Amino acid sequence: MKISDLETPTLLLDRSRLSANLTNMSERATGLGVALRPHMKTTKSADIARLATAGQNGGITVSTLKEAAYFVANGFTDITYAVGVSVGKLDRVAALRQDGARVTVLTDNAEVARGIAAHAEATGARFDVLIEIDTGDHRAGVAPDSLALMEIAEILDHAAGVELRGVLTHAGHSYDCRTVAEIQTVAEAEQAGAVLAAERLRAAGMACPVVSVGSTPTVVYARDLNGVTEVRAGVYMFNDVFQASIAACALTDIAVSVLATVTGHHPERGEILIDAGGLALSKDRSTAVGPHDVGYGLAVGLDGAELPELHVVRVSQEHGVVATAPGAGALPFAALPPGSRLRVLPNHVCMTAAAYDCYHVVEGEEVVATWPRVNGW
Amino acid sequence: MKISDLETPTLLLDRSRLSANLTNMSERATGLGVALRPHMKTTKSADIARLATAGQNGGITVSTLKEAAYFVANGFTDITYAVGVSVGKLDRVAALRQDGARVTVLTDNAEVARGIAAHAEATGARFDVLIEIDTGDHRAGVAPDSLALMEIAEILDHAAGVELRGVLTHAGHSYDCRTVAEIQTVAEAEQAGAVLAAERLRAAGMACPVVSVGSTPTVVYARDLNGVTEVRAGVYMFNDVFQASIAACALTDIAVSVLATVTGHHPERGEILIDAGGLALSKDRSTAVGPHDVGYGLAVGLDGAELPELHVVRVSQEHGVVATAPGAGALPFAALPPGSRLRVLPNHVCMTAAAYDCYHVVEGEEVVATWPRVNGW
Repeated sequence: MKISDLETPTLLLDRSRLSANLTNMSERATGLGVALRPHMKTTKSADIARLATAGQNGGITVSTLKEAAYFVANGFTDITYAVGVSVGKLDRVAALRQDGARVTVLTDNAEVARGIAAHAEATGARFDVLIEIDTGDHRAGVAPDSLALMEIAEILDHAAGVELRGVLTHAGHSYDCRTVAEIQTVAEAEQAGAVLAAERLRAAGMACPVVSVGSTPTVVYARDLNGVTEVRAGVYMFNDVFQASIAACALTDIAVSVLATVTGHHPERGEILIDAGGLALSKDRSTAVGPHDVGYGLAVGLDGAELPELHVVRVSQEHGVVATAPGAGALPFAALPPGSRLRVLPNHVCMTAAAYDCYHVVEGEEVVATWPRVNGW
Repeated sequence: MKISDLETPTLLLDRSRLSANLTNMSERATGLGVALRPHMKTTKSADIARLATAGQNGGITVSTLKEAAYFVANGFTDITYAVGVSVGKLDRVAALRQDGARVTVLTDNAEVARGIAAHAEATGARFDVLIEIDTGDHRAGVAPDSLALMEIAEILDHAAGVELRGVLTHAGHSYDCRTVAEIQTVAEAEQAGAVLAAERLRAAGMACPVVSVGSTPTVVYARDLNGVTEVRAGVYMFNDVFQASIAACALTDIAVSVLATVTGHHPERGEILIDAGGLALSKDRSTAVGPHDVGYGLAVGLDGAELPELHVVRVSQEHGVVATAPGAGALPFAALPPGSRLRVLPNHVCMTAAAYDCYHVVEGEEVVATWPRVNGW
């Protein structure tokens, strides 16, 4: 099958770019002396997880229990569920353990920790738990030097049926950086905070075998991960225009695009319409705050044709409006007749890919495979 | 089953609010003397389409051919595909006709019109076509007084196998209105433009049985739809915080919400975490430009408990950060312990609902049904 045989909008995955991204990150982790526990929240694909864990210890990270169950069904047995758990989800975690998988959960809350302990005691289930550390992102986590860290740790450490495995942090504020130097500063704070938290647990006599950090930008630019045992990153597998805008990748490293068809011309406004809108691209506007705002995506030619820079400047549910970037000149209507096709590189690929149930894996013009992905909760 | 038995995040649909919304719109169309062709792009549910077409002629509107195929499989035979078609999609349209459905397509482009004519001639397929009119939204459509309208109409009218059925417009710019008077002005332009286009076709000797207008705000507030034959609207079935912000509904008319669980407390920032993030709520920020910005959604209590106004102020993929609205006072942490639940009313329900494969239909605390929805393309 060729790309030209595909209906639009649909999701393309460039296999050679994916492979290069995976190899680079795996080598990067090895060079830093840490394990790579790839975060599958971006790709949600067992086919990709198998490639991403090649040469690593096979552990992965997930963002939902539906992902966890899917990966367990696909043979993965060492999974970190890296979003704060609620007690109401523990039965599902316990069921996955009965299926033979170790699904490690996360919390930053003493009441949840007590709930995990109580659940283990009441049901006989066993839980592996990490404590989430806030190293500057201020989304979730306790401060590395906080009393709360020790309170949660003691609850978990004293609970029968619970294994406190260590600490985990996510420097999501690396996404706010605009220079490599800024990302390196965040990476240092991420490493230092996680290691400090681990040292406090160990000083109190608790084991802390896992010191887990990660975001794609900080792993790409970290200079020293001394004391860290593993890195989690996910978006590096595909990359996107936002990651390129903060220099975490090059535009040519972006492996995923939305294939779209031109449906109309509006020369009076310098616009063409495509059949990829807010649902096909997502409403994510990550690039809005950066130096290179591409609207809802960066549109490129299907076959490498030289086009001026094209942005998806507006979307509604099933319509995308494409215009040239400011200063990029006139829109080449003749090169993009109705029925012709474009690829749109996503702002934020984790959001965009979630609208699709599969990837069309391509090499040049050939569709060489179709890989399913798991969505929902 | 009770709401408390559901895993989170998940989508709740309040049956009595849905019923009231459907009845009100159907009566409104009848009062205006027009048919209602409900747009199923919001709900994507055959169960809801059956209710929405009660007392109407059974015709519906869709935004994708996957929706069209789903509704044909569910017995609907009069479908308008109200997004500009591309020639590459015509085989799918023809196949649906062979399944017994009349799927009317739309274009605003002479080259596409020629492509439709050529496809019909080459394959023997028959196509019903509407011409899209721009009545001020400036997304798609030709101007009512344009030469392009007559050029497209003549191509279609002269083509064997093609039936030019009329004109269609969507006053999407009603979403930019902030007062009822503004919406009424847009509704008048929508009606006048569509009727002018129809009259031009008729004056040239062409039949124009369909004069189709619609957006939820303009249908809600139109005073006169003389010359219009049908209205299309979709979001009215569910409503959302954005529609409430432009007075197209009340907050108490919002029938869909995302059920979420509290996963963490951050009193140092006045924030709680919930397990509904950017994927569960969408990244739509429609309310950002209006007078009542609720972030990524308006969080309300599960059981009508009195809470200060709560907004989802930040999201990442699976995290939502909830804080009180400006001026609404302190966040009542004790009333929202970890494990407790909230409902989040969506900014833009068309985007939010698309993350889910079904609705949990609720009456009070009871889950009385589960209705599937169709996503993708």
